[in-house]
Formats: sequence, structure tokens, C-alpha cells
Amino acid sequence: MRETLLEAARIAARETLPVFRTAMAVDNKDAGGFDPVTEADRRTEQAIRQFIAGRFPDHAIAGEEWDDKETGSPYRWVIDPIDGTRSFICGIPLWGTLIGLLFEDRAVAGLLSQPFIGETFVGLPGEATYSRGGQQTTLRVSEVTELDAARMMTTTPELFRRRPAILKAFRNLEARVQLSRYGADCYAYGLLAAGRIDLVVEPDLKAVDIAPLLSIIREAGGIVSTFDGGPAEAGGDVIAAATPQLHAAARALLNAG
Amino acid sequence: MRETLLEAARIAARETLPVFRTAMAVDNKDAGGFDPVTEADRRTEQAIRQFIAGRFPDHAIAGEEWDDKETGSPYRWVIDPIDGTRSFICGIPLWGTLIGLLFEDRAVAGLLSQPFIGETFVGLPGEATYSRGGQQTTLRVSEVTELDAARMMTTTPELFRRRPAILKAFRNLEARVQLSRYGADCYAYGLLAAGRIDLVVEPDLKAVDIAPLLSIIREAGGIVSTFDGGPAEAGGDVIAAATPQLHAAARALLNAG
Repeated sequence: MRETLLEAARIAARETLPVFRTAMAVDNKDAGGFDPVTEADRRTEQAIRQFIAGRFPDHAIAGEEWDDKETGSPYRWVIDPIDGTRSFICGIPLWGTLIGLLFEDRAVAGLLSQPFIGETFVGLPGEATYSRGGQQTTLRVSEVTELDAARMMTTTPELFRRRPAILKAFRNLEARVQLSRYGADCYAYGLLAAGRIDLVVEPDLKAVDIAPLLSIIREAGGIVSTFDGGPAEAGGDVIAAATPQLHAAARALLNAG
Repeated sequence: MRETLLEAARIAARETLPVFRTAMAVDNKDAGGFDPVTEADRRTEQAIRQFIAGRFPDHAIAGEEWDDKETGSPYRWVIDPIDGTRSFICGIPLWGTLIGLLFEDRAVAGLLSQPFIGETFVGLPGEATYSRGGQQTTLRVSEVTELDAARMMTTTPELFRRRPAILKAFRNLEARVQLSRYGADCYAYGLLAAGRIDLVVEPDLKAVDIAPLLSIIREAGGIVSTFDGGPAEAGGDVIAAATPQLHAAARALLNAG
């Protein structure tokens, strides 16, 4: 499973890296706003799908750019070829390729790959590991339990714009934590698993944005759920924390909004 | 000059990299808010100062953590050992070591180094170059002239909090550009010089935050000034753009606030 994930990441990098920091086609997916989808995004997902379908022909596959492959299998792969397409378009190396495996709708394995920096974060049953340049280390969340010692990230407060009650609650949470930073997309969850930040809060996630990250966070010792405490596999409003105490404290504030 | 800048960056990296993504001392510089200053910050600046003072004993040196060295020379080095200390503390590899040289208060050379990724951006009279892994390319800004095609960055809109009129103008500008991203500190100016983004807007910069970046931006073809069109060497409210047209359009909106 580890080798499958890492090989899929290498295949993805062959599509993404030649395009990163070059001129490229940017489509408007949404007629109302700017939602960039690149050709690289589509090609990368197709390459990962072909590789996985070759290895596990019976497994279901869900992605971002192409229709779901339904097989009736309890195993379902979830792929986000380029999470953070806006970072990708701006040349910021915090986007990632996300590949996860669910069994009966529960995450059992996952990978976050940032190929420009050359980093992979992998979660498998019983282990969470970080690799770069042939060096491998165990991922372990921080021990922070108090909001006033917590470093928090979200992609951008603009995500809360259509949700005034939650934005207010999020601002209350921001006022309580030690430090709040924006702009990291999936990379924030890798930093959480690595113990460098303590809290990630994001509304309205799709399954592909979060399902591949769940095994990494959980096997590193972290807690992740929707705001109401439910499973995060299907996306939604998501809160990920280093410790149960921090998770509970942040959830209480967000739900008081 | 190129070799001096690159050697200073190597010396800085020997101080910063062993500390990045490890537990470390974090002081509260400002009793009112959270303004992290690390031991690494202090040690890095000292190492760069010693190196420069050894090579150019007559030059003045200004930094962030230690008193200015005044010599009466028209040459003044400006050093920010770790620009983006919050990124540094959160494990985000978008902080940078900034080293610039002024002659009679005008920037004549500058370097941005991101040693974790292994990137350097250098501006010297007549050249702007990007280096990574032994490969070197010329930096060149984009040709974007219209706001609605512009990709913009700022560190965080929170920087505008004490400046309601400017925040309002900034929100107007955000509504006009194609894409607005947060969170990159000095790295945003490197992306501007590389043509990956088109506009950077930041209020209340100190000289050390921006002076070392000016040669990189200008030699890559970009325009940078304060909001009122003055020189940016001393910091202040700064706007950097890929083209004169974009610079003028953004300035007009910001000054209408």
C-alpha cells in the first residue's frame, strides 16, 4: 500500500511539475466566480486513475475532474490531483497531490505529496511518516491542549463569507488562539500531523479535499471531525486538532456562533 | 557582490535550517500582541553581520534584532535574518533571509534566500536571477497590465486592521483582481519577480522587510513604490507590480480609500 501511494505520487509529479511555474491554460469552472482548473489537474487525475485501476481493477475511484468509477467494492480511492489550484497558479509550493483509500466509507490510508519541495506525508494503519530526500521520519502531532498556545491555520477567511454566523464564531476563535495564519490548503494538515501547527479549521470542504488526509492526521495522533463531531470522510465543515482537549475547545467556540 | 550575497545566505542557512521545524524558544517581543522572535533570528543576524563586517569593514549595517552600525559610509547593508517569523514558527517554508545593499539610500543589490526549498532570488545592477539546485534562470515579471487579469498577494488583511480607510480600499482592489491570496511574506515578492503573480500590496513595512527585495523586483522589470508613489527603501505602505499600468491602476484604487 505504501509503495502504491508513493508510485502514484511519482506518476502525478511527472504531470504536475513540468507545468508548475509555467504559463498554462486556466479555465473558469464556475461562471459566477474564478475557480481555476488547469489541464494539468485533469491529466494528473487521469494518470493516477489509470495506475490505480491497473493495480486494483475492482476498486471504486472518485476524483475531482472526472466522473466516479463505481464497482460495488467497499474500497474506494479518493483523488485530488492538485489540491490548492490557486497556490499552484501563483507559483506557491504549498499545493499537493492527495490520494486516499476508504473502506466502507472510512479512511484507511492516505498520501499528501508536495513534489516541488519533494515531500510526502503518508498515513497507513499504525503509522504516519514524512519523507524527503531519502530521509524518513515519524509524524507526531503536538501536545498543545490550550487555545491560547495554539497555532491555527485556514486557507482564507473568505471561505466563510457566505456563512456569517460561522465567520463570527471563527473570528472569536482567532481572537483566542496564539497565532492564526492563512494560505496553506492541504499543506496545513501535513504541518498539523508534523506537530508544527495545532489546529486547522475549514468550512465547506469536499470529500476529495479531506478524505485522503484523514489517515495521516489520525495516525500522527490528531483528531479530525466535522464541526458537529461527525466523521469527516464526506467533507463539510472540518476541524482538525492535535489533541482531544484542543479539538473540544475549538468545536465549542465554533458551534456557539 | 553576487558571491558575497550567496555566501551570506549560506552562512544564514547554517543558523536557520537546524532550527526550522523543531521546538525552539519563542519570545514575546510586543507585550500587547504576539510577535515571535526566535533565538535563531538573533543568531542568524549576528552571523551575517560578522561576515559582512569582515568583508566591508567601512560599510554601515542595519538589521532587525541588533542596533545599527553607523560608519558614515554611503553604503548600508540591510538585513532581515528571518522575514516571516510566523511562517517559520508554523513550519511553512515561505519565510526568507533578506540581505540588501543601499548606496545613498537607494537599493543597489539584494537577495532573498529560502534555504529549506533551496531557492535564491538575487538582484544586482543589470540582472535578476533565480537559482535552485545548481540551475540558474533569469527573473522576469509578467506582462499583466489589467487589474482583472492580476494575481495579487498580501501577507494577511489583518495588517490593515488599524487602518480602516486603507482596508476599505484594499477590499475594493481585491474585488477587482482575478485572484487574491494571503500568507507569503517576502516570498510573494520573489513570485512577483518570477512572473508568477502580478501585484503585492502590504501596509506598514519596515525598511528591512522591503529594501533587500527592491533590486530583485526592479531588475526583473517590476515597479515598486509606496502608495503615494515615493521610494520604498524606507518601508511604509508598499505596492509592487509587474507593469507600470498595473501599478498605476492599483495605486489609484488604494489612494481613493
